[in-house]
Amino acid sequence: MAKTIIGIMGPGESATPEDNEIAFDLGKAVAQEGWVVLTGGRSFGVMDAAMRGAHDAKGLTIGVLPNDNSVNSSDHADIKIMTGMGSARNIINILSSNIIVVIGMAAGTASEVSLALKSNKKVILLNQDEITIRFFKNIGTYKVQVASSVAETMEMIKSYVKVNKVPVK
Amino acid sequence: MAKTIIGIMGPGESATPEDNEIAFDLGKAVAQEGWVVLTGGRSFGVMDAAMRGAHDAKGLTIGVLPNDNSVNSSDHADIKIMTGMGSARNIINILSSNIIVVIGMAAGTASEVSLALKSNKKVILLNQDEITIRFFKNIGTYKVQVASSVAETMEMIKSYVKVNKVPVK
Amino acid sequence: MAKTIIGIMGPGESATPEDNEIAFDLGKAVAQEGWVVLTGGRSFGVMDAAMRGAHDAKGLTIGVLPNDNSVNSSDHADIKIMTGMGSARNIINILSSNIIVVIGMAAGTASEVSLALKSNKKVILLNQDEITIRFFKNIGTYKVQVASSVAETMEMIKSYVKVNKVPVK
Amino acid sequence: MAKTIIGIMGPGESATPEDNEIAFDLGKAVAQEGWVVLTGGRSFGVMDAAMRGAHDAKGLTIGVLPNDNSVNSSDHADIKIMTGMGSARNIINILSSNIIVVIGMAAGTASEVSLALKSNKKVILLNQDEITIRFFKNIGTYKVQVASSVAETMEMIKSYVKVNKVPVK
Repeated sequence: MAKTIIGIMGPGESATPEDNEIAFDLGKAVAQEGWVVLTGGRSFGVMDAAMRGAHDAKGLTIGVLPNDNSVNSSDHADIKIMTGMGSARNIINILSSNIIVVIGMAAGTASEVSLALKSNKKVILLNQDEITIRFFKNIGTYKVQVASSVAETMEMIKSYVKVNKVPVK
Repeated sequence: MAKTIIGIMGPGESATPEDNEIAFDLGKAVAQEGWVVLTGGRSFGVMDAAMRGAHDAKGLTIGVLPNDNSVNSSDHADIKIMTGMGSARNIINILSSNIIVVIGMAAGTASEVSLALKSNKKVILLNQDEITIRFFKNIGTYKVQVASSVAETMEMIKSYVKVNKVPVK
Repeated sequence: MAKTIIGIMGPGESATPEDNEIAFDLGKAVAQEGWVVLTGGRSFGVMDAAMRGAHDAKGLTIGVLPNDNSVNSSDHADIKIMTGMGSARNIINILSSNIIVVIGMAAGTASEVSLALKSNKKVILLNQDEITIRFFKNIGTYKVQVASSVAETMEMIKSYVKVNKVPVK
Repeated sequence: MAKTIIGIMGPGESATPEDNEIAFDLGKAVAQEGWVVLTGGRSFGVMDAAMRGAHDAKGLTIGVLPNDNSVNSSDHADIKIMTGMGSARNIINILSSNIIVVIGMAAGTASEVSLALKSNKKVILLNQDEITIRFFKNIGTYKVQVASSVAETMEMIKSYVKVNKVPVK
């Protein structure tokens, strides 16, 4: 049966230590529910930290990589989807996730939030500044939720999964 | 010899009348310089208006389409690049343009600005609100320029083309 | 740690009953080794049969889908990678697999064999006619191997995995 | 109005001198009809030769490139569509062409023929060996035509364009 996949998106090299810590905690909490963590798969920042957290709880992880090989991919990606498509892979991250949580912000991450809203996906913003929140609320309205902690994020995901009977086919 | 390609990006169905008028004027001004106008190719909003403007000055236009056929493509796209890739085509719009001008805002458009900044492309924001400008300045710094008119936009493009000897190979 | 992923490719609607039976048996044999089965993910033909076989041995399966949602996806795909890219997803199937086995032939399948050879991947042809074998040997030389049974295919995969220390990073 | 686009596909570095000569002649003949030549855009083999031929007749050329920049792109590509998607760009070559002519054979080229047949496009095979012809006839039936000269190819294209009122919208 199709697994429930939670996308955790955020900056790579430019992630802050706080972004990484939150990503680790969220990846761990998601794995504890038995859900799969999906990220951009690289060995840096939020991607790596979220999958490391999932592994801390013995969860399964997927990394959807920009390259056509595993160079610079995270050791914590169990399943490496190699696209060879650069940033075009961002839409795959979004479409393959039942719901998306975004921690920290950078250009690639902003494209993922935008593509999620374009694709009518629910996005939870975590550890974001006021400008970011207002910008994405303006273009995404009700599809954008703002969480102030990992615990609150998990409540939002559980509610979404329950209401939407995820995964649906 | 490779032609100079100016990307004009903006909302489709949700474009405002003002977005469309500015897009038409900019498409026309770009074509008058002998440059090619590239858009997302659909028959709506900024895409359609910019190519209509280019045609008003007998310019050449390219539409990079999300579909695998020409349904809902603009009559003003001379060259229809059919990708069949949905929003994954947004990165192609960006990479194929020497410089990008963004008129109006929506989720797809925001993904294009973000992908442009991720790809180290220069982006000129036109007819944008304060939140949008601040958000993209935060993540794109010097790669983001803000113009207040078509005339000012054209000056920025000319300066960029001159300094960077576009098209470069 | 990265899992070993075996790609099993073949026709959807046009698969023969024999193609499906071989795919089921191979999927099962691959899963019994503890390897992951990756397919094009649709609910037809070789894709569906290979993943059904893997599930018969309690294996893990990945379906890389052409659509942006799970319509027409196989119930036997545990992880659904939704690309929204149509046939452009074929290269992802190839790049994400450590080695590729091809059962039966159709246009989409032929594109996957061709892309595998282009990407310097090893391809094992199973249940193929003489023309198909000669064609792909001509363009792929040593990268193409021909197996006459599931057992022989498994030996070839084991040898490849051993020699190449798959998964390598 | 949408231009008529003829895709000319074939090997890059591994093209034979004869492939290149035929590609040059065909590119020139296509341009003389006022049609646009579309290729994979690289500075080698059939791609480069076809666009050089088109330029010899002052035609317009499009190169759909695998890279995210113009390195190794042909000087004879007027419009460079930069995809950054590697071989995933092959489907764009096919979908964007009204009809496809294939000169010579290699793995990438075989993927293009296969994707064309998958996408229900008409393909004309030129300068192909018997095995190649039989293989693609087997999987593509009536969608595959075989030409023995540039002149015959041009007749086939003209007939197709006339019957199908290309470009259609």
